[in-house]
Amino acid sequence: MDAKYGFLLLCLLALTDAAGNLCCSYPCQHGGFCLTEGFDKYICDCTGTEFYGRHCENPILSRRIKLWLKPRPSTMHNLLTNYEWLWNIVNNIPFLRNFIMKNIILMRAGLIDSPPQYDNEHTYITLDANFNHSFYTRTLPPVPLDCPTPMGVAGRKDLPDLDVLAKKLLLREKFKPDQRGTSLLFPFMAQHFTHMFIKTDMKRGPQFQWGGHGLDVSHIYGKDKHDEDLLRTFVDGKFKLQTINNEEWPLYNKDVNMTLNFFGFVPAMENNSFALGHSFFNNFPGLFMFSTIWMREHNRICDIMKKEHPEWNDERLYQTGKLIVLGETMKIVTEEYIQHLSNYHFQFLYKPELLFDVPFQYQNRIALEFNHLYHWHPLIPDEFSFGGTNYTLNNLLGNPALVIKHGMSSFVDSLSKQIAGKFTVRNHPHFGVKVAKNVIKHGRELRLQSYNNYRKRFNLQPFQSFEQLTGNKKLAQELETLYGDIDGVEFYVGLLSEKLRPKALFSETMMELGSPFSLKGLMSNPLSSPKYWKPSTFGGAVGFDLVKSATLKKLFCQNINGDCPEVTFRVPGFVESQGEAEDESLRNCPEHGEL
Amino acid sequence: MDAKYGFLLLCLLALTDAAGNLCCSYPCQHGGFCLTEGFDKYICDCTGTEFYGRHCENPILSRRIKLWLKPRPSTMHNLLTNYEWLWNIVNNIPFLRNFIMKNIILMRAGLIDSPPQYDNEHTYITLDANFNHSFYTRTLPPVPLDCPTPMGVAGRKDLPDLDVLAKKLLLREKFKPDQRGTSLLFPFMAQHFTHMFIKTDMKRGPQFQWGGHGLDVSHIYGKDKHDEDLLRTFVDGKFKLQTINNEEWPLYNKDVNMTLNFFGFVPAMENNSFALGHSFFNNFPGLFMFSTIWMREHNRICDIMKKEHPEWNDERLYQTGKLIVLGETMKIVTEEYIQHLSNYHFQFLYKPELLFDVPFQYQNRIALEFNHLYHWHPLIPDEFSFGGTNYTLNNLLGNPALVIKHGMSSFVDSLSKQIAGKFTVRNHPHFGVKVAKNVIKHGRELRLQSYNNYRKRFNLQPFQSFEQLTGNKKLAQELETLYGDIDGVEFYVGLLSEKLRPKALFSETMMELGSPFSLKGLMSNPLSSPKYWKPSTFGGAVGFDLVKSATLKKLFCQNINGDCPEVTFRVPGFVESQGEAEDESLRNCPEHGEL
Repeated sequence: MDAKYGFLLLCLLALTDAAGNLCCSYPCQHGGFCLTEGFDKYICDCTGTEFYGRHCENPILSRRIKLWLKPRPSTMHNLLTNYEWLWNIVNNIPFLRNFIMKNIILMRAGLIDSPPQYDNEHTYITLDANFNHSFYTRTLPPVPLDCPTPMGVAGRKDLPDLDVLAKKLLLREKFKPDQRGTSLLFPFMAQHFTHMFIKTDMKRGPQFQWGGHGLDVSHIYGKDKHDEDLLRTFVDGKFKLQTINNEEWPLYNKDVNMTLNFFGFVPAMENNSFALGHSFFNNFPGLFMFSTIWMREHNRICDIMKKEHPEWNDERLYQTGKLIVLGETMKIVTEEYIQHLSNYHFQFLYKPELLFDVPFQYQNRIALEFNHLYHWHPLIPDEFSFGGTNYTLNNLLGNPALVIKHGMSSFVDSLSKQIAGKFTVRNHPHFGVKVAKNVIKHGRELRLQSYNNYRKRFNLQPFQSFEQLTGNKKLAQELETLYGDIDGVEFYVGLLSEKLRPKALFSETMMELGSPFSLKGLMSNPLSSPKYWKPSTFGGAVGFDLVKSATLKKLFCQNINGDCPEVTFRVPGFVESQGEAEDESLRNCPEHGEL
Repeated sequence: MDAKYGFLLLCLLALTDAAGNLCCSYPCQHGGFCLTEGFDKYICDCTGTEFYGRHCENPILSRRIKLWLKPRPSTMHNLLTNYEWLWNIVNNIPFLRNFIMKNIILMRAGLIDSPPQYDNEHTYITLDANFNHSFYTRTLPPVPLDCPTPMGVAGRKDLPDLDVLAKKLLLREKFKPDQRGTSLLFPFMAQHFTHMFIKTDMKRGPQFQWGGHGLDVSHIYGKDKHDEDLLRTFVDGKFKLQTINNEEWPLYNKDVNMTLNFFGFVPAMENNSFALGHSFFNNFPGLFMFSTIWMREHNRICDIMKKEHPEWNDERLYQTGKLIVLGETMKIVTEEYIQHLSNYHFQFLYKPELLFDVPFQYQNRIALEFNHLYHWHPLIPDEFSFGGTNYTLNNLLGNPALVIKHGMSSFVDSLSKQIAGKFTVRNHPHFGVKVAKNVIKHGRELRLQSYNNYRKRFNLQPFQSFEQLTGNKKLAQELETLYGDIDGVEFYVGLLSEKLRPKALFSETMMELGSPFSLKGLMSNPLSSPKYWKPSTFGGAVGFDLVKSATLKKLFCQNINGDCPEVTFRVPGFVESQGEAEDESLRNCPEHGEL
């Protein structure tokens, strides 16, 4: 493979010599850094890559052995999503389960550079990339401005018109459901959870962000002390809540006066304006539901801790409640949310101590690429049913009180029983098209490298053809017309067009890029670090157990009166349409990534 | 030792039972966390400490072996500051030198918690301690508010009056010179360098800071993009400089218009207002000198890199110059500044790759304790001589143009030939007394734990008596009158009163606390991390060599016309008054820490 690449690169270089910046052709392999030396020479700095040679093309011996031994991502996926009997055994042998979990984390999170190297405005390392926290970081630096095409040397000089893309790739004609039976609870959990750390500061530009670069539960508690204080009772550590229809809900914002941020077309009115930790969360009932249930959980935790610690004041109960809520979040996200995403039979573990004997950087920075890949609007349908009543998407926007009307129990039950959409082309709901167009536009402004360059960055083989990318001839032809060259495909379009993996919600690239960011974020959180991960951080054994035994079902059912509703990421009774035997054979089947 | 402590603790506990918070007596040893359980019980959480037992008093076997093998800090210091013949051999055997350097870093930097755990307002872990960068972090949490005394249970209920302290411990009657021949270049280097990362945001309070928590060369380049842009020419990456008396100097601020910050009693006028990276740096000629020489060095680097990279634009030359300046700073600080501080015969190395095969956290947070211990005003004399002309300290304040008047060469030569003051009691220059009083006051407001608690935190034996602390009977009596109990001595007063180490500028505690913060800051900088530390980060081999071969002498002499002046941290020809044999015998001698 290396020799083949070397040759292709030399051809590319010969073609682009006149263009000025020789690094535009990305001649350096395996993470080597391309450095021009004057106008007509370049070198590849292979330091630290475990590769050597003019283009860092040759692995050193130990890396060569590792490469031989390492299974391909598709083989791993196949292994982990089949052989249920084998995994049932593994899941019950703690030593094996720990060993596998530890290695999944190290392999995934190890792909994320920490400390961060790049920002959105320089194609090389700068000090600000590390010290300026108002930037999103970049996993791959921007394409240099003096390159012949937006992707360097590959592809067309001009990328496709956004309206053409919207028509051909985004806009939904008919809702396509997820084929794995993912419930609507899943995308709303994703939306609520990710707004904690993906916070673009659009006033300054798409490269800026206003968050804390990690899991800090600011989406529940508020972005700063001022907002946090507005939500607090200052008694027994608790949030302000009010009773409506015999249930507890956040206060109307007229009584609290936080700054809220509605969609432009949704008017802020008294009955749709609640005081929540994130200014955006009145826009969807699903977000309001998750915020409410976490606020109830916080207050429930405060009651428990007050019994354990009658000597504690309001502040300590509040701060410890916050730590426990974060711990529960991380447990649920790892063992249920990521579990569902992966579709593995192997059971994930949130067990920070697995990493305490190995080098691991306990710091995190949110990457622009993570932001872009987390745009999952195709998962949202156009029609909803709550407690037997039908609604359109428009009925939901800016209407959090819908949760109060139907009640928490009925609302979460309804979300658990409805199927989410499929992440593929032509499945964006109407309101999501504008968002996706903006994502693609920002990707261009910030000069994201090509989809294939990202595959290489995450140890995947670059696609050789549009048909290999899409698994669908018709879509492949459309994309070829739009982009000309498989190496010229841009980031979000690639994600949307790639064939789905067998037995998975998403494509190979989405999973192989997304998991490292996710696992790095979870495991590098201070709470997962050796000095934090101990009983006293959570007020003692009782608080620590709350974290270690948290489940999504308990989160809801312990904060709902009456019977426990359905709380699940997979629609109950859903039967997958394909059996185990399909996996490899379906990889090039038109059905995956259909138009 | 452990059994003895256990008994003492039980006595203390019995005495303080009625006081409410049982953790005020700091019953948990070796970093165990004290957690109350109701009003009348507590437990020690020993997780991760390598100790067990009710008070984390018993080491686990591997730790016990390590403790047996580990020499005391005083033994280490004695070994490293004597036996010059031995170190001359070690310094010439790369394998040995690397091995020792690596272990010095790991032992020192390993004492700093990373990620940080505490802020200045909570006695327990909170999420904000990590996520809120506007706080100084805390190495030990504040003393709980509900404790019987400001230090917990030890010492008096009321700490000594600040004016009494000023009179008895701070104010200089007669200048006491450093006995190791430290030149005045050293404290001005310290002052310039530390203002990069110790930046208290007094408007918000002494617990707040406005810096980047590390070495980011913001003291030369400016605190943000706005300030940086004001200093730039935007041509070939260079700073704006002007020629006066045939030398290059920063611009008058009237031509640049940055926000400057003068001492209250110094009027900002045209001839004392230059545009510098740090708003405070016009206050001392020594700071102006260092800023100027680094700005010249940056421009010199830009010239070199422009020759290497004619294809680079202004921005890339500027950003790479900044990275090289930081690299040179770290090289000089490690191999000359810290070298001088340590007084070791072992030669320090700035060689980041030494840590690439071990777990090391590449993140840093500036601690309040580091801020407080870095108040070294006793090193500043009252009288100065530049180029044969005498000046008082008052002549210097707010008078940067003095450097221009005498010329860079003469000025640095004069600083190199004058002796600095000794860090001890009654040696604060007049203007420093107010600063030191504020440090002590802020230490009280932010409830710093006792000096002995800090000694324990950094693996030092707590002092048993005032005489052991001071090595001086008279001073011991004074302190006993003021504080009553050796465990009641506050942080900065302890630092100032402690006897100096043999063959060292400072006391044992200053060095054993300061070195971990310093080495952690240097080695955890992104520049020292595997992904940054490579030739291409510095524009290739030439830039990398600039970093790896930097010295203080070169910094000055390559940016001064004519002959190379004296550039040294030790006054040339200075003969130390004591020989090698003095070390242990002098430890209790009144001379060290004299009144």
